[in-house]
Amino acid sequence: MATSPERPIGVFDSGVGGLTVLSAIRQRLPHEALVYLGDTARVPYGTKSPASVLRYAAHAADALLARDIKLLVVACNTASAVALPALQARLDPLPVVGVVTPGAMAAVAFRRGGRHLVLATESTTRQRAYTAALQALDPAAEVEELPCSLFVALAEEGWTEGPIATAVAREYLSFLDRRPAARRPHTVILGCTHFPLLHGPISTVLGKDVAVIDSATTAAAAVAVRLREHDALTPASCPGALQLIATDGAARFARLGSAFLGEAFTETDIELIDIHPTDRD
Amino acid sequence: MATSPERPIGVFDSGVGGLTVLSAIRQRLPHEALVYLGDTARVPYGTKSPASVLRYAAHAADALLARDIKLLVVACNTASAVALPALQARLDPLPVVGVVTPGAMAAVAFRRGGRHLVLATESTTRQRAYTAALQALDPAAEVEELPCSLFVALAEEGWTEGPIATAVAREYLSFLDRRPAARRPHTVILGCTHFPLLHGPISTVLGKDVAVIDSATTAAAAVAVRLREHDALTPASCPGALQLIATDGAARFARLGSAFLGEAFTETDIELIDIHPTDRD
Repeated sequence: MATSPERPIGVFDSGVGGLTVLSAIRQRLPHEALVYLGDTARVPYGTKSPASVLRYAAHAADALLARDIKLLVVACNTASAVALPALQARLDPLPVVGVVTPGAMAAVAFRRGGRHLVLATESTTRQRAYTAALQALDPAAEVEELPCSLFVALAEEGWTEGPIATAVAREYLSFLDRRPAARRPHTVILGCTHFPLLHGPISTVLGKDVAVIDSATTAAAAVAVRLREHDALTPASCPGALQLIATDGAARFARLGSAFLGEAFTETDIELIDIHPTDRD
Repeated sequence: MATSPERPIGVFDSGVGGLTVLSAIRQRLPHEALVYLGDTARVPYGTKSPASVLRYAAHAADALLARDIKLLVVACNTASAVALPALQARLDPLPVVGVVTPGAMAAVAFRRGGRHLVLATESTTRQRAYTAALQALDPAAEVEELPCSLFVALAEEGWTEGPIATAVAREYLSFLDRRPAARRPHTVILGCTHFPLLHGPISTVLGKDVAVIDSATTAAAAVAVRLREHDALTPASCPGALQLIATDGAARFARLGSAFLGEAFTETDIELIDIHPTDRD
């Protein structure tokens, strides 16, 4: 692998949300070539059976392998929770980085034996993947997971600041105000790829005493570490190309995705592919 | 058909939203037996291809036919827009009622040559089914369709009244304030099965000069008309049984659905079936 560090990093998500992870990787590693695959024909993964998620993730990984990637980032929380070991086995010796473990590592690094509050979608909180990852790293960690579905809708609608976003964050988090200080969390983990867009109102409501951990940024840091371990960082002379692929709905992908990536792009910048040739829908 | 009016009415939706239609039918026709099928394994239909929606709708109709229904209500806006003619042909001579046409008929009845504003999901507004139905009934009708995705999230979160719901309604509808009275709509059609839950805040923001048309209530009225036409109304001596079927996630279906139905039920009240035996997801 060390022989061709110019190969791209592959980033895979069920939809546009993983573009926040892509954006964090670009900021951290601006010289890397990146290829992003949003499986928009199948979004959301969170309501699908584990067997289906495993199958979709394998298809997506294969499609990115065909682009000669040197590392795979599973930016989807559901796929990270369900399919990471299977993908690691399938792609071995290629490194595969998920979003759950890096976020959990950052939270535990901030505070051992700490109290952690995970904000995520309903399906992610039901999987308890962050609880498992946090307690594997630190058995003394106390973890709560809180479903915050409306944050997804706010992010997709582009209502990421202003009074409505703040009121929604306050409504979800007001239960913390009724707790004694000794029961409040030390960290709040943004455990959904959409939630970094709402970092502002969430942080405002939580105040300065809570560390807000963004699993997009921590995943990007984990990517940098893994590439360094494999001696596969792209030289600083490289321009850092970006390729966007979706499996359906390029217009919606471009409209929503620009905010998630933090950079405008249009439908014509997206390559549409079919990665489920044996499925009929 | 007139020989067994005690047969149930079948109501089909992609998820829990159609329970608002079921609720309206129960209020209108309390003696009817009802069987509801939520295709929760496939929700949402709005992002699926028309070919897939046609296939899912056919499977759902067949599953309800197996329960000996006397009339099918397609409570899903996407399926109504895409699959109604195909379902009518498939089930003929059984009557099939969608949600789009009854809402359009009520709006046109309220005001011929009127201005109509349709609030719906992004996928429904993209299909322009309400525009087509309104202008088929009244070529002089002026129609706008406005995607209001956050209403879906609010309804599913149970935040259907209070300052956040009102602020969201105000944000979506504030563009009307900037219009001269002569350009404001005569009717606002709630073109998503979730939106009747937000009738309160939407009506508050619109004020008294706009007629809010709820496509659940208008669909229920259409069902009553069709049963009367077919001489298939259940006698008033019947108790009005209710059967709930889902294709996945009974716990979530019960938790969300109780608010949509306006009556508490639990997971154990739901029959889980598999209506896509040839699909692998």
